[in-house]
Amino acid sequence: MNFVSDNITGAAPRVLEAIGRLGAGADSAYGMDAESQAAARRIAELFEAPDASVMLVATGTAANALALAALTPPWGAVLCHEEAHVNDDECGAPEFFTHGAKLAGVPGPGGKMTPGGVRHALTRFPKAVKSVQPAVLSISQVTEAGTVYLLQEIAALSAVAREAGLKVHLDGARFANALVALGCTPAELSWKAGIDVVTLGLTKVGGLACEAVVAFDPALAETLPFRRKRSGHTLSKGRLLGVQANALLEGGYWLDLASHANAAARRLAGGLVAVPGIRLAWPADANEVFPILPARVDAALRGAGFAFLPWATGSLGQGETLGPDERLVRLVTSWATEMSDIERFLAVAAAA
Amino acid sequence: MNFVSDNITGAAPRVLEAIGRLGAGADSAYGMDAESQAAARRIAELFEAPDASVMLVATGTAANALALAALTPPWGAVLCHEEAHVNDDECGAPEFFTHGAKLAGVPGPGGKMTPGGVRHALTRFPKAVKSVQPAVLSISQVTEAGTVYLLQEIAALSAVAREAGLKVHLDGARFANALVALGCTPAELSWKAGIDVVTLGLTKVGGLACEAVVAFDPALAETLPFRRKRSGHTLSKGRLLGVQANALLEGGYWLDLASHANAAARRLAGGLVAVPGIRLAWPADANEVFPILPARVDAALRGAGFAFLPWATGSLGQGETLGPDERLVRLVTSWATEMSDIERFLAVAAAA
Amino acid sequence: MNFVSDNITGAAPRVLEAIGRLGAGADSAYGMDAESQAAARRIAELFEAPDASVMLVATGTAANALALAALTPPWGAVLCHEEAHVNDDECGAPEFFTHGAKLAGVPGPGGKMTPGGVRHALTRFPKAVKSVQPAVLSISQVTEAGTVYLLQEIAALSAVAREAGLKVHLDGARFANALVALGCTPAELSWKAGIDVVTLGLTKVGGLACEAVVAFDPALAETLPFRRKRSGHTLSKGRLLGVQANALLEGGYWLDLASHANAAARRLAGGLVAVPGIRLAWPADANEVFPILPARVDAALRGAGFAFLPWATGSLGQGETLGPDERLVRLVTSWATEMSDIERFLAVAAAA
Amino acid sequence: MNFVSDNITGAAPRVLEAIGRLGAGADSAYGMDAESQAAARRIAELFEAPDASVMLVATGTAANALALAALTPPWGAVLCHEEAHVNDDECGAPEFFTHGAKLAGVPGPGGKMTPGGVRHALTRFPKAVKSVQPAVLSISQVTEAGTVYLLQEIAALSAVAREAGLKVHLDGARFANALVALGCTPAELSWKAGIDVVTLGLTKVGGLACEAVVAFDPALAETLPFRRKRSGHTLSKGRLLGVQANALLEGGYWLDLASHANAAARRLAGGLVAVPGIRLAWPADANEVFPILPARVDAALRGAGFAFLPWATGSLGQGETLGPDERLVRLVTSWATEMSDIERFLAVAAAA
Repeated sequence: MNFVSDNITGAAPRVLEAIGRLGAGADSAYGMDAESQAAARRIAELFEAPDASVMLVATGTAANALALAALTPPWGAVLCHEEAHVNDDECGAPEFFTHGAKLAGVPGPGGKMTPGGVRHALTRFPKAVKSVQPAVLSISQVTEAGTVYLLQEIAALSAVAREAGLKVHLDGARFANALVALGCTPAELSWKAGIDVVTLGLTKVGGLACEAVVAFDPALAETLPFRRKRSGHTLSKGRLLGVQANALLEGGYWLDLASHANAAARRLAGGLVAVPGIRLAWPADANEVFPILPARVDAALRGAGFAFLPWATGSLGQGETLGPDERLVRLVTSWATEMSDIERFLAVAAAA
Repeated sequence: MNFVSDNITGAAPRVLEAIGRLGAGADSAYGMDAESQAAARRIAELFEAPDASVMLVATGTAANALALAALTPPWGAVLCHEEAHVNDDECGAPEFFTHGAKLAGVPGPGGKMTPGGVRHALTRFPKAVKSVQPAVLSISQVTEAGTVYLLQEIAALSAVAREAGLKVHLDGARFANALVALGCTPAELSWKAGIDVVTLGLTKVGGLACEAVVAFDPALAETLPFRRKRSGHTLSKGRLLGVQANALLEGGYWLDLASHANAAARRLAGGLVAVPGIRLAWPADANEVFPILPARVDAALRGAGFAFLPWATGSLGQGETLGPDERLVRLVTSWATEMSDIERFLAVAAAA
Repeated sequence: MNFVSDNITGAAPRVLEAIGRLGAGADSAYGMDAESQAAARRIAELFEAPDASVMLVATGTAANALALAALTPPWGAVLCHEEAHVNDDECGAPEFFTHGAKLAGVPGPGGKMTPGGVRHALTRFPKAVKSVQPAVLSISQVTEAGTVYLLQEIAALSAVAREAGLKVHLDGARFANALVALGCTPAELSWKAGIDVVTLGLTKVGGLACEAVVAFDPALAETLPFRRKRSGHTLSKGRLLGVQANALLEGGYWLDLASHANAAARRLAGGLVAVPGIRLAWPADANEVFPILPARVDAALRGAGFAFLPWATGSLGQGETLGPDERLVRLVTSWATEMSDIERFLAVAAAA
Repeated sequence: MNFVSDNITGAAPRVLEAIGRLGAGADSAYGMDAESQAAARRIAELFEAPDASVMLVATGTAANALALAALTPPWGAVLCHEEAHVNDDECGAPEFFTHGAKLAGVPGPGGKMTPGGVRHALTRFPKAVKSVQPAVLSISQVTEAGTVYLLQEIAALSAVAREAGLKVHLDGARFANALVALGCTPAELSWKAGIDVVTLGLTKVGGLACEAVVAFDPALAETLPFRRKRSGHTLSKGRLLGVQANALLEGGYWLDLASHANAAARRLAGGLVAVPGIRLAWPADANEVFPILPARVDAALRGAGFAFLPWATGSLGQGETLGPDERLVRLVTSWATEMSDIERFLAVAAAA
């Protein structure tokens, strides 16, 4: 009954079981433990990048901010979609970790930047000391609007960035959902598309608190151990992170969980558009659905006990507007979403 | 067989069980969940401070650095023992979170500052714009040397600080061990002794990753929610922290765990001083023992598979020195220490 | 012949004379000297604000960044016009001095924000920990587009800001030019219009390196002495700043200098619009003229030895565009502009 | 009559004359003007380092902090004498500019560090992520105690630093006084002795507000233009700095001024030690004298209108202490010191 976010459910069974096995035994502290080391190797292999540097932290905010701090000087600019999580939802964490770099929002419908949009944003920053210097392009995949960039779209953005001398970061808070949506490999969704550093999200997909920063050129990650320690993100009992990553990645468990979430969203989206008066703001590519609801449907659903968030209209396409009695809302599904809840949701919507 | 630290063992059984119950249910994100809220209330009650502000984070480095950042401006000075964890072992986290405040080390034997030492350190900072201004006294209880300040010692330090206009922070990474050692209440070991903000450690005592920042005057904590979020320490599934705290504090479980650790250290210390040629650098007040070992004993123990750290001699009392064939080492016990390992350790030491 | 900027000429005669009198005598260091103290009092009186806190620094970047740092926490947002100097031309100085606050650009034609634009920008920042919190509205007067806000326009912006709990900063790099343009008093152009802190520019008007930060509520300035020292802006021989301020302000000298600059711009603007094919992008309210020139006029002027900058078209009004053979340029006049140069400029333009 | 500091007098005649010539002409802004460029070339030549990067700023605090920020990451440590200006007298400017690096004080009598002292300080920082990493050794020449390191002393310190992978910074706030005292060349006192970056002080010697950061390997200075701009230290009318440097350096004027200051100090020191009951705490190597005065002499001098500062006793040699009726004070001479004032000072001291 809760479609607020995929970060509000507990953890998937195998994750809890793995944590439950962390008993009295001793192991090295500060991320040098066997589980964390194994997780790092596993992730590098998963990305077909044996030399990649992999670092685990407990939150996506930390992973994103650390990744950006490794890629930009304090006088750099980070280009990202104007509604990107790093720009709007992390209370300035990137600014804190980078010591004051500037986040420059690039507009674009459906949460997506375009090569033209990035090129235009770059013109704001002349090669002069008076201006901060563009250093990073940060791409959110899945986007804040729940859409998924095609691989060629990412490659096109990366190409623009690279040509201008920028590094490319992928905020993969919902990386698994994107993988499932695209049916591609982690390598294809990252370095093969021009990505330098990935924030690999493992919390929303089914972990409790686990994300990884993956740098394909380990030279880019040289400062990260110090930055992580200094920001308080080096867990003494680091195995807490390692076991989550291992439990999720082993046997493709994370992809199974993401598939369930995506399928639930697909069913939800399909059911909603079948209801007269309801349309989607954007395609529901992964595990988020952004329907535009008549106000009375919105009210009926809330009255029936469903929880979900109203959403800002900034990413609506040009010319697209809400009517006075329409509401844009966000519905998020997860590994824990019950299909029966979706059917009930659709029934209430249809009845209203 | 591992006496390296109390941060290298897994978690106590009830903690793991509690985490294991974190299934598929939804709850509010970002620390607004029921478990975290209950933990906050529980901790406030534990400290007999119903108005206290309580905030959970995953690491002691974060808890300390956030606490200090709440108490000092960037141009402030934090006085602490010169070997304090915040000064030497957190890669400059306090400087990062405070935006560049200065940590000023106060020397003192056995890891303890004295009122005279603090007064002397204060003279370094005139009331002039050219100087950073003393803002916080940070007291480590248990100290880095494993000693425990008496309540009156803490009160005397707090009084000096307060008189000079400083706030007082207690780094309680091993707060439970100190409580057990002193047989006092949390209130006595904190606000009743003049402490403004406590870093309450729950990881070493038996959690996996859980610490709390407790501010007795909630006005001192007003900036903390923003600082926590901005530093990436606001877990989306914050209940991971809440359940650890609740499991540990319920029924005094954490004190049972700490008692075991302290008793193990006491037995270790008592057994060691009975061996000719071995002496303690300082009293083993809590769960750490710092013996001065003949080199051959040190070697024999390591040969027998025991792991422990050599230690710096900076906190030795005046006039106290190591002989050329002596080694200062640190032995840490925990909730997980087996008494049989201690007996074996003592036997090897005695035989050497 | 140089219309590049008003920051590239030397200093007005009385300023140089005053500096020339700074001989061998001793005076207090670090801004406590008689000249700086007198300048502070003089500026407070000028603003009819005897309790105002006044602080001198050598650059506008420092003055702006210090002012903003006094008004926002690191997790605050500073709203300003998207082309404001603080946003685009100071290499992130506000971010550096504020420890990472976010500058949020508000669009608006002719370099001006509107109350509606500010209100819309505020909606980006919900009252939630995940978002930075709007803390300051920074108004540039004269704007980057050379336009001058009317007093009621400033009052309207201030009212929106105040209602939302923001402090209001005025970047007065060309404050004197605005005063002359509006024919109002410094008080009317500041606190009477709702401004909390003014950056009072004295360099462009005729000084060498002198700006003042004026806080009408001295409580807002409490941290500034430390921030100034810590950022290296507390001159040991602070009288260098004091004498400039005193020389400029005495007898209204600065207004005479600004009047000359404004009159030169007026003549330039008037002459240009009389040339067929030339129009102004915005009104030339102060000492800057932004004509849209046919490319051949632009070329002819440069060929004749005139120096001036091309300008970005972001502040053009909606619907206004440049033709393929048109150039938007910026012409800046100053106290040192020769009227004969202007006539020659106009003659070349007309001939082309 | 004023022996408080050499930063409280105005400027030397040729400096004022040069500033006085800065009339209405236009030149490039932001340090690209002809005077600043000429000064940079002149300074590079002076140091026999044609490839050196030279950057002018208005204050020593800025010059030092910028230099250190170029040499250390935020998680670095800067070793310096525990009483160094960068450590005690700049309100944490190095911490601000470096984004939180740690200044580690090295004790040593007479304001001087020793190779052994530096080696010992280095042991505090293990090569582990938990520790900040030593990055810079900052040597003050002249020291805070007015003593002057011999060239071989500097070379020995540099060698220790270099061996440990540190860069070496020289805080040359009184570089000219040291040059005169040692009779050596700027090159000998810098890169030939292992210095990487010099803060070249021109304010105390006779300028108004001018210092230079000189990096012998220009790669070390790559970030400095951004750091300078971002910290508000890029003067728009940068020629103000350039003319000061040129006026001082042309024809060795600065050395003449420094010679006068040093000679005045020498006479003062010689006269004082001839008075029974007065001794020097350390040799008066340059333009500062630190006598230990009987309290009645101290009072008599103040009564006669002489101004000077009491001084901290931290740099007294081991075993050296003040009697209860003794006062350690600092007397600073400058280019503007009148010899007749010195004779009068000595007469009052002798009479008391």
